[in-house]
Amino acid sequence: MNENYSPGVLSVLPLFYVGWADSVLGPSEQALINEKIDSMPQLSEADKELLKSWTDQNNPPSEEVFKNWSQSLKRNKESWASAKKDQLVSMGILMAEKASSTGNYIDNKKVYQAIKGLEELLGVHEGLDSTILQKTLDVPSKSVSELTDDIKFTADDINQFLEGERVEIMDKIKSLISDPSFDNTDIRLKEEYRKRVLEQCQILADHKVSNYPFPEAYGGMNNAEATTIVFETLAYGDISLLIKFGVQFGLFGGSVHMLGTKKHHDKYMRDMISLKLPGCFAMTETGHGSNVRGLETTATFDKATDEFIIHSPSVHAGKEYIGNALHSKMAVVFAQLMIGEKSEGVHAFMVPLRNENFKEMPGVTVKDNGYKMGLNGVDNGRIWFDNVRIPRENLLDKYGSVSEDGTYSSPIKKASKRFFTMLGALVQGRVCIAMAANTASKKALTIAIKYALKRRQFSQVNDQEETLILDYPSHQKRLFSRLAKTYAYHFGLQALREKFVNKQSEDDVRKVESLAAGLKAMASWHATDTIQECREACGGKGYLTENGFTDMKADTDIFTTFEGDNHVLLQLVSKGLLTEFRSEFSDGGFMSIVRYLSSRLSTSITEQNPYTIRNTSADHLLDEEFHLAALEYHENKLLFSLANRMQTYIKKRVDPNITYAKVQNHMISLAKASIEHFSAKMFYEAVNKIENEDLKVAMRRLARLNALELIYEHRGFYLENDYISGSKSKAIRKQLENLRGKVRPLANHYVEGFNIPMNLLKAQILE
Amino acid sequence: MNENYSPGVLSVLPLFYVGWADSVLGPSEQALINEKIDSMPQLSEADKELLKSWTDQNNPPSEEVFKNWSQSLKRNKESWASAKKDQLVSMGILMAEKASSTGNYIDNKKVYQAIKGLEELLGVHEGLDSTILQKTLDVPSKSVSELTDDIKFTADDINQFLEGERVEIMDKIKSLISDPSFDNTDIRLKEEYRKRVLEQCQILADHKVSNYPFPEAYGGMNNAEATTIVFETLAYGDISLLIKFGVQFGLFGGSVHMLGTKKHHDKYMRDMISLKLPGCFAMTETGHGSNVRGLETTATFDKATDEFIIHSPSVHAGKEYIGNALHSKMAVVFAQLMIGEKSEGVHAFMVPLRNENFKEMPGVTVKDNGYKMGLNGVDNGRIWFDNVRIPRENLLDKYGSVSEDGTYSSPIKKASKRFFTMLGALVQGRVCIAMAANTASKKALTIAIKYALKRRQFSQVNDQEETLILDYPSHQKRLFSRLAKTYAYHFGLQALREKFVNKQSEDDVRKVESLAAGLKAMASWHATDTIQECREACGGKGYLTENGFTDMKADTDIFTTFEGDNHVLLQLVSKGLLTEFRSEFSDGGFMSIVRYLSSRLSTSITEQNPYTIRNTSADHLLDEEFHLAALEYHENKLLFSLANRMQTYIKKRVDPNITYAKVQNHMISLAKASIEHFSAKMFYEAVNKIENEDLKVAMRRLARLNALELIYEHRGFYLENDYISGSKSKAIRKQLENLRGKVRPLANHYVEGFNIPMNLLKAQILE
Repeated sequence: MNENYSPGVLSVLPLFYVGWADSVLGPSEQALINEKIDSMPQLSEADKELLKSWTDQNNPPSEEVFKNWSQSLKRNKESWASAKKDQLVSMGILMAEKASSTGNYIDNKKVYQAIKGLEELLGVHEGLDSTILQKTLDVPSKSVSELTDDIKFTADDINQFLEGERVEIMDKIKSLISDPSFDNTDIRLKEEYRKRVLEQCQILADHKVSNYPFPEAYGGMNNAEATTIVFETLAYGDISLLIKFGVQFGLFGGSVHMLGTKKHHDKYMRDMISLKLPGCFAMTETGHGSNVRGLETTATFDKATDEFIIHSPSVHAGKEYIGNALHSKMAVVFAQLMIGEKSEGVHAFMVPLRNENFKEMPGVTVKDNGYKMGLNGVDNGRIWFDNVRIPRENLLDKYGSVSEDGTYSSPIKKASKRFFTMLGALVQGRVCIAMAANTASKKALTIAIKYALKRRQFSQVNDQEETLILDYPSHQKRLFSRLAKTYAYHFGLQALREKFVNKQSEDDVRKVESLAAGLKAMASWHATDTIQECREACGGKGYLTENGFTDMKADTDIFTTFEGDNHVLLQLVSKGLLTEFRSEFSDGGFMSIVRYLSSRLSTSITEQNPYTIRNTSADHLLDEEFHLAALEYHENKLLFSLANRMQTYIKKRVDPNITYAKVQNHMISLAKASIEHFSAKMFYEAVNKIENEDLKVAMRRLARLNALELIYEHRGFYLENDYISGSKSKAIRKQLENLRGKVRPLANHYVEGFNIPMNLLKAQILE
Repeated sequence: MNENYSPGVLSVLPLFYVGWADSVLGPSEQALINEKIDSMPQLSEADKELLKSWTDQNNPPSEEVFKNWSQSLKRNKESWASAKKDQLVSMGILMAEKASSTGNYIDNKKVYQAIKGLEELLGVHEGLDSTILQKTLDVPSKSVSELTDDIKFTADDINQFLEGERVEIMDKIKSLISDPSFDNTDIRLKEEYRKRVLEQCQILADHKVSNYPFPEAYGGMNNAEATTIVFETLAYGDISLLIKFGVQFGLFGGSVHMLGTKKHHDKYMRDMISLKLPGCFAMTETGHGSNVRGLETTATFDKATDEFIIHSPSVHAGKEYIGNALHSKMAVVFAQLMIGEKSEGVHAFMVPLRNENFKEMPGVTVKDNGYKMGLNGVDNGRIWFDNVRIPRENLLDKYGSVSEDGTYSSPIKKASKRFFTMLGALVQGRVCIAMAANTASKKALTIAIKYALKRRQFSQVNDQEETLILDYPSHQKRLFSRLAKTYAYHFGLQALREKFVNKQSEDDVRKVESLAAGLKAMASWHATDTIQECREACGGKGYLTENGFTDMKADTDIFTTFEGDNHVLLQLVSKGLLTEFRSEFSDGGFMSIVRYLSSRLSTSITEQNPYTIRNTSADHLLDEEFHLAALEYHENKLLFSLANRMQTYIKKRVDPNITYAKVQNHMISLAKASIEHFSAKMFYEAVNKIENEDLKVAMRRLARLNALELIYEHRGFYLENDYISGSKSKAIRKQLENLRGKVRPLANHYVEGFNIPMNLLKAQILE
């Protein structure tokens, strides 16, 4: 047999040839492919019959047929040898053109689109597939990186999509920290490093980078959005500087601003903004980290002298891990406000640490925390107070004040609400850390993906050039799933920023706090995981300091436990989700909660019918609606079962605190599901607003990958709850490999879209 | 209502009271509980009826009944107030004794065992449950750490179980490196650090620690087992020293020993063992890491002078990341052996790097690799050779030699087999790194668990002492699952060590190589993950260098990518599993493979009937047979589907290399499943040999936790394949929480069993 195929069949033969080698078609795909074949304008009825006979998975083409394809392709080599871009499609078109008498194939848009559509359905992707061609047909090797030639958008367009008008401030910061005087990589000794970082902090203040958050009356710019942009962008440089800057202007400055009143602003704000008054934020104690309400430091009012006496009752009550402790003149100290024997709860006080000659004040002891995993440019220390006296006016009294006669008063009557309002005023820190964490993920992915586009190892075909490591499916799995998630968190954080800047009502504030807690936890874990994977993906090279990961990993590692331990924060998120029906909780109306939640749940499972559960078609598996419904169902189902369990405990009179402890792991799962759903949704919402069609396709690809990876990650949950069938779960796995293959040709665009200057990447392997 | 219960009912009332608050009973548990009630000797028929009426999950006890329980317990407080150990059981017995006229409860073994059995079934566990009692009944608080009073084994017994006779060598090494002169924590500058580590290496050599692997004729001890123990134990100290030691005696010395012949042994071995001849192992090149066969350095034979010319043809062909590069006089260089234009493949050569005055030899260029994430006590560098001439005898010629006239000969004819035999001679490195990685996991867990037994945060009940953080279910989940896995890898590695020491046949060698590759990958990833989690579990404290995690994390991080990249190694493991039917592969007997594998598969699914799939009883879920069958099924099913997919590709004439690339992710999943199954099985096998019954119970608890965590981790797979039902998956989740609660009282024993001296933990938080 040495059959000559018709022009129509030839036009799709390359796709069949490669597609069959990569046969991962399910029955539903087969039906779709047959439908597509029926709609192709260039095919005769006989062509259609023949092609359809080849799609039957139960009765696949014989070895002889396969050999005939290969010979047919080889015979026509002259026709298609010039095919370059869009290789498989154009090979088919060129062969058909040559073989047909009418010559109606080249530049025929309908035919092109029909073949292109079939390629999509077959899930053929570049990289390895072109290697198959090279091997068997001796097609000239073609670097996959060149595939993006005819894409109608640039990396700048992606950056514009990501950052919009924020690029202006970002560029200013990038250009400042790109100066060689901001390069700290070669410093090993903490004393020298800390000194350099303090100087760099002063340079930023001199350039008014510190002004954004503060009131105009004190030289500030009252611009909360810009504040977040500054932090996010500083994270491209040395993280020690970011943290030093954050301690001085965010924590110390933020406390004076948000917890103090006009007298404090008048007295301290200008000097704080200019760094003339360096200060620290002394909240955490050795014995109390997450449980801030249990702090042991006391601030006892002494009516006789109109002073507060700040005191650490034990070694463990010392302030712990306080950034800027060795460079500060002043500390904002959080302590129990005592009037007589009674505590009015934790309040903040301005406590001078050192005098004009930088000597420690009487009763103040500061001890260096020594070396840390990273951030050795930040001077962390421990601080103890031995009956240190400060004037009454040093109480930051926005939410609670003490009169001359020792009467305590507050605009917020309920002590617990007052406490959470004070803490809430500091939410900015979590927003900024979440953004800085995602900046680090972007940086790590840029290095690893760009390296994988240079690095070759093992040749697939003897004596040919070795394969780019980014063309290996395992490398794609490791890097692209994390790339997609980084984009998703970017848009989750974007949405958080908008809410943070525009918050008005108490409800807004609550939502911002909850989102900030959740996104800080998830984005910081994601950064830790991503940097680790990227460093491993660069092999031993990733372990060398000269390639950027070393400091990035060490410096950002603390993000998971500071500004709130991630596990504790996620429990806050779940408590937030539960508050919606707190009232039902307290009066024990168990059935009403169940009814309420089950109605909420049913909205997300309307599509959950036997057909959908088993639907394995590519169209469905890649569908935004399917993705968001599944992620919403995950969140709602976990919320429903959590409320159910808790109500049972409450009904049995188990103490609420014990109940919370018992459902701790459940709460953590719920919070993760909630943030994953939120970020995936925000990513899709942003994508749907894009006007450039090519850019939209490219971005939707990542949004799909992000969502589908999440669904696959939680397939245990979906299978447990019969939300998907086993065969659907398997189909998702296959679809993910296809999707990653489609991300591959755009990989360089995706990371260049982050727009990180080379000198901030600090990775010699890219040079 | 204020009912007085009978003595029989009182005897189990505390369990019902706490058990109901923690209601997680499924219908199958309910049946088992009723059975247990029927068998209790102290109960009348009326008692049984009453108790059974309380177990109905669909019709739970009313609030009034619950209140009556609580009042009844309070009324009898005087009777049970003295209950201490085994609190819930002894409360019941004391109440019953007081209320009964016969007084036949105390010291009645049958009654005790019956109640104890019920406690087990109810899944009541310590920690939070005792808090419930405290809250509602005002029972005196009792630290859970004290619960282990009456356990009939000690931490020493655990250590004996783990290490057996190996403790002797371990103790020698521990005592050597515990000396203050081996403490490097305060060194920051690499030059100073490297010098110190070199000195410490010399001390070890002076103590003959380096002698173990080598032949007795050269002062060695020919003890392969001891060699592995030395590496495993050195990992308790500074990892820089371990690696420096490993490079000199394992890689450099191992090459001379295993690849050289008598002339090399005579000339170099004594000086190498005494460190008089420091050397390095120059295999990896900048351009070629994983793909060793593609190395570009050449060793061209020059017949005229009877020399080899060692040459780096390009910058990228330079040797990269070579440990000991700056301190070495000699290098074992891996290069293509060229005779004329023909390469005989990669061979190893002794190449002098520096002369007696420690000046670089002509043509040799060495460059410092600079700072790294960790291991800064090891001098890594790059080395280039510019036509460096060495005598012909410097070829390490065990597996290939060149005669004076330029004729190449080898005892192994096939080039690829020769290559893998040479590499295989170096398998010891992987064995040792795998063990060192697990040592690091043990160290990290010891610090984190001991800290969690000291650290308290948040009180569950107002005004009471705060809760130990190890009593929180989320903390238990984070640490205990990793603890169990560390034990499992310990026994997996034990089995590998035995095979390594006793290997004889080619088949043995192949198995050792495969296990070493797989366990190195899994244990090093596990260490990276465990150290990260443990550092986070200690909060900000974990970030301080003074608490041990900082250096441990940074130093062990490279384990995942050196001595073979983990992803590459796992693919080797899967290739090994596939070789069993390689012959069928090559002749295309597709159906015979499918038949063979499906028979193998069916042995592991004999229990997979509708009843087993849905069996959610605790007995079944904790059953070793269920665990090992499930893990074996996981491995076999993945192997089966992999072979299936590959056969399909092969049949379609896809090149084998491309086929391997296409199924890469599948191969990695299979290798992981295989190592997980192996380690779980080896752990159980070791447990089953224990004679001390208490110790056996304690160890089986961890073996169960390890296996059940794995099954839960892969529940997506099991659900996909209908191996378990959704309800069984949920029941496993609940059972895991119970199991972790049972691990909790023994936590301190489990980590003390590792027997790590405090001064090697180097964690100030434990002081």
